[in-house]
Amino acid sequence: VNPAAAAARLPDVQADADHRGIALDEVGIDGFAFPLTVLQRDGTAQPTVGDAELLVGLAAAERGTHMSRFVEALRDRSDAVTPSATLELARHLRDRLSSESARVRLNFPMFFARAAPASGAQAPMRFTVSYRAASSTAAETIAVRVEVAVTSLCPCSREISDYGAHSQRGYIRIDAEQDGGPNALWPEDLIEVAEAAASAPVYPLLKRVDERAVTMTAYDNPAFVEDLVRDAALALREDPRISAFEVRAVNEESIHDHRAVARVRWSAR
Amino acid sequence: VNPAAAAARLPDVQADADHRGIALDEVGIDGFAFPLTVLQRDGTAQPTVGDAELLVGLAAAERGTHMSRFVEALRDRSDAVTPSATLELARHLRDRLSSESARVRLNFPMFFARAAPASGAQAPMRFTVSYRAASSTAAETIAVRVEVAVTSLCPCSREISDYGAHSQRGYIRIDAEQDGGPNALWPEDLIEVAEAAASAPVYPLLKRVDERAVTMTAYDNPAFVEDLVRDAALALREDPRISAFEVRAVNEESIHDHRAVARVRWSAR
Amino acid sequence: VNPAAAAARLPDVQADADHRGIALDEVGIDGFAFPLTVLQRDGTAQPTVGDAELLVGLAAAERGTHMSRFVEALRDRSDAVTPSATLELARHLRDRLSSESARVRLNFPMFFARAAPASGAQAPMRFTVSYRAASSTAAETIAVRVEVAVTSLCPCSREISDYGAHSQRGYIRIDAEQDGGPNALWPEDLIEVAEAAASAPVYPLLKRVDERAVTMTAYDNPAFVEDLVRDAALALREDPRISAFEVRAVNEESIHDHRAVARVRWSAR
Amino acid sequence: VNPAAAAARLPDVQADADHRGIALDEVGIDGFAFPLTVLQRDGTAQPTVGDAELLVGLAAAERGTHMSRFVEALRDRSDAVTPSATLELARHLRDRLSSESARVRLNFPMFFARAAPASGAQAPMRFTVSYRAASSTAAETIAVRVEVAVTSLCPCSREISDYGAHSQRGYIRIDAEQDGGPNALWPEDLIEVAEAAASAPVYPLLKRVDERAVTMTAYDNPAFVEDLVRDAALALREDPRISAFEVRAVNEESIHDHRAVARVRWSAR
Repeated sequence: VNPAAAAARLPDVQADADHRGIALDEVGIDGFAFPLTVLQRDGTAQPTVGDAELLVGLAAAERGTHMSRFVEALRDRSDAVTPSATLELARHLRDRLSSESARVRLNFPMFFARAAPASGAQAPMRFTVSYRAASSTAAETIAVRVEVAVTSLCPCSREISDYGAHSQRGYIRIDAEQDGGPNALWPEDLIEVAEAAASAPVYPLLKRVDERAVTMTAYDNPAFVEDLVRDAALALREDPRISAFEVRAVNEESIHDHRAVARVRWSAR
Repeated sequence: VNPAAAAARLPDVQADADHRGIALDEVGIDGFAFPLTVLQRDGTAQPTVGDAELLVGLAAAERGTHMSRFVEALRDRSDAVTPSATLELARHLRDRLSSESARVRLNFPMFFARAAPASGAQAPMRFTVSYRAASSTAAETIAVRVEVAVTSLCPCSREISDYGAHSQRGYIRIDAEQDGGPNALWPEDLIEVAEAAASAPVYPLLKRVDERAVTMTAYDNPAFVEDLVRDAALALREDPRISAFEVRAVNEESIHDHRAVARVRWSAR
Repeated sequence: VNPAAAAARLPDVQADADHRGIALDEVGIDGFAFPLTVLQRDGTAQPTVGDAELLVGLAAAERGTHMSRFVEALRDRSDAVTPSATLELARHLRDRLSSESARVRLNFPMFFARAAPASGAQAPMRFTVSYRAASSTAAETIAVRVEVAVTSLCPCSREISDYGAHSQRGYIRIDAEQDGGPNALWPEDLIEVAEAAASAPVYPLLKRVDERAVTMTAYDNPAFVEDLVRDAALALREDPRISAFEVRAVNEESIHDHRAVARVRWSAR
Repeated sequence: VNPAAAAARLPDVQADADHRGIALDEVGIDGFAFPLTVLQRDGTAQPTVGDAELLVGLAAAERGTHMSRFVEALRDRSDAVTPSATLELARHLRDRLSSESARVRLNFPMFFARAAPASGAQAPMRFTVSYRAASSTAAETIAVRVEVAVTSLCPCSREISDYGAHSQRGYIRIDAEQDGGPNALWPEDLIEVAEAAASAPVYPLLKRVDERAVTMTAYDNPAFVEDLVRDAALALREDPRISAFEVRAVNEESIHDHRAVARVRWSAR
């Protein structure tokens, strides 16, 4: 049996007309794991593993979308992933699924070498990155998101105690929409902003001499979760490539079993 | 030492003036686990365990918020949780933290008895519920969210196959903002909508005679993830107590290792 | 139609003979959410929400087990949960499923009031508890497990730095098998051991005067992840009610994005 | 300042003598994310992203281990990961940390191309793989673990219903210790066993003609969770390269909101 001929004879239930009169904002797949090759700011490539969310709008008159086309679209565009290429993928989905809108989110870890502050010992450090793009008749957007682990040391604890100050691991998440030409903005740009806002960066590899340096750097730069967000926001507002952003910081409090959080959104428009 | 007197002598770093000029949309705590007593639609109470997200806006001139007050606020209002009481909690936070806005989300499981369709055998079934409330000078909102496990059976698979049809567990999540008086809307209302949209409900306890009934009910009511969303949306649009809603359905596809998703938002305004 | 009569006419596929000659160590259900009432050491009751793992051994000659009976067994034994009652549940499953062995694990949060160290301000604190019981022809066991959030402060960081020392949230998990009579051992007993081994306990509610106390207590009691485990193990070895234990500690390192871990197992036999 | 000289002057707290008399089974790091290059059965390499658990035993007389050495060890051995190389890493840790025992676990996704059963359409499919190795004076072991998503269709539901049968996504997890020479056993070997035990394999990309084939294949091959485990175990017992194994199957039941599970362990010894 010829598969194409066999397929042609099977009814296409998704293509049925729908009479409920409800257009859907999003239909598609998520949690789809895929090997990706991601381009870096310096032009080189980095292999990684992502999971994808691929969605289109569905017109009121259509019963369903064709899910296998999302898989094919990502399969054929997974080897040079950039923010701009993510928008190209969204445009392709819009066209291939004959939809008025499409939205793509690719989530993946990226690793960048980090040198310990005193010894210089190096190891790769993991950062969680997302590229998000949307294409519709009304607008197109490209956004880059990073989540960066940091050390935060509590200013209140330091001030009110005779010695010591509680510190903890925190995460600063920056989601920035970019303006301007293709690939104006890279994850590396946002990671730098997040690390500069921390009491101290977090490292994959620290020798004793480095642990001493990090301990004292954190003590010298106490920061509330509010400070993490504000310092990152100050830097992002000055960046002409960024048209809108959200910064969220979370402290995995070392003196509690819950988290302290802060968030700000900003838009140039 | 008198603790209150001692505390009065400690510097209040959070109360420091801030000169960065950045107001924060949200500051507070999340992931805070707490025992709750939740009222049900029928007026009776159900003990459960929740986790809370408690947030206020922070004015540009203030350095930080006082995190312990969030904990006290929830501690003192955890014994008769309703949608309206969640708004009261948000109003209290706004007042207690001297903020222009406050937002609360309480997430908790609720259990309701389910009788198997043929044998009538009963057991409690878990539903994931959230109450969300916001209070600001501009507006106040109350929303109820439920996530309901369902069976979905694929209409395409049924139509194109000589026998059988793949089915899977899905989740329908409804988030509805309520209009009207206090506690106009209950999780029970939304759970009924979700279960009616499914190929078949999911049960905690099924005897063989029930499994037969559920298998054939699902086969008789095939539904794409798009259908789950549309059928729920149709019912929600007719409900005068609901001013806005989002419905999201997710199918844990049994023929794939990824998920099929659909989503629609609607507002009466 | 009478459901029982209808059921009697349906074939019982699970009861078919199996000819592959492979007995299974465990068959049953897990991830089963259920409302529980748990007894406390002081004799009072605490409502909570658990998830259950209920398993029996399956003889080589049997095709399958009857999953609905697990649900009925828990449903009928969920209102006075203790370590001993968990063994009773395992014995019941063994009998009801005609199996040579049964194993039960109930996981649930328990909340105990915690008073802040200086102000005395109180709020409930969540601890993650499991009861585990096994019954077979060879042996019966009852075990209690707790996971306790703690503060740990690094001795190395303190020693090598001119000021400060990094701290973080850690978790000490103790799993202890009990000897002796019914309910010899309670989660409260193990929580006390874990908190005593920490640099400082973690609290749900801390005022400024308490934060000062906790900060200095932690600085005065530095502990590696190895120390957390050893100090807990020392206390557990002295407890005549405990016949075997495992202690595991995990530090969510504030200077890294990975975890430091240590583990020890001990048995009186 | 010369960092090495500076480090030499810092006290080494971990190297302190310990007087509590408690040797620890495991000390080290986990949740450590790292880019890996993994060799495949066919000799080619696949880049991926893993997380590592690296542990050594700690003698009773030593206060602590040196965590940074674990990071260096993995960093220098991440570019040709195989089961045998994982044992080499464990041996290196044992030597580098002067320990009597070391244990390594590397977890990572691997992708293998899968062709749809009728159309032949290809896409990469994700499988979750772990390599585990232990080295001590007493013994050395190498184990390979895979977790494979599958379709399962309920034999009871099919038998007792006039039409249809509920199906769901399941996961078969095989953990096999290998005997014999280096890299005797590969994840690909175990994935084949798991997929052959299923009602039908799961695919990343299915066209309509494939969905028809998979639907009918699953209906033609009904399997309880018990059957998944037994059929996999039968195949594994015949494999002379495998000295011990555990098979665990989990069905994400489509008619329940809990899981059905089965497990068997076997050892040639």
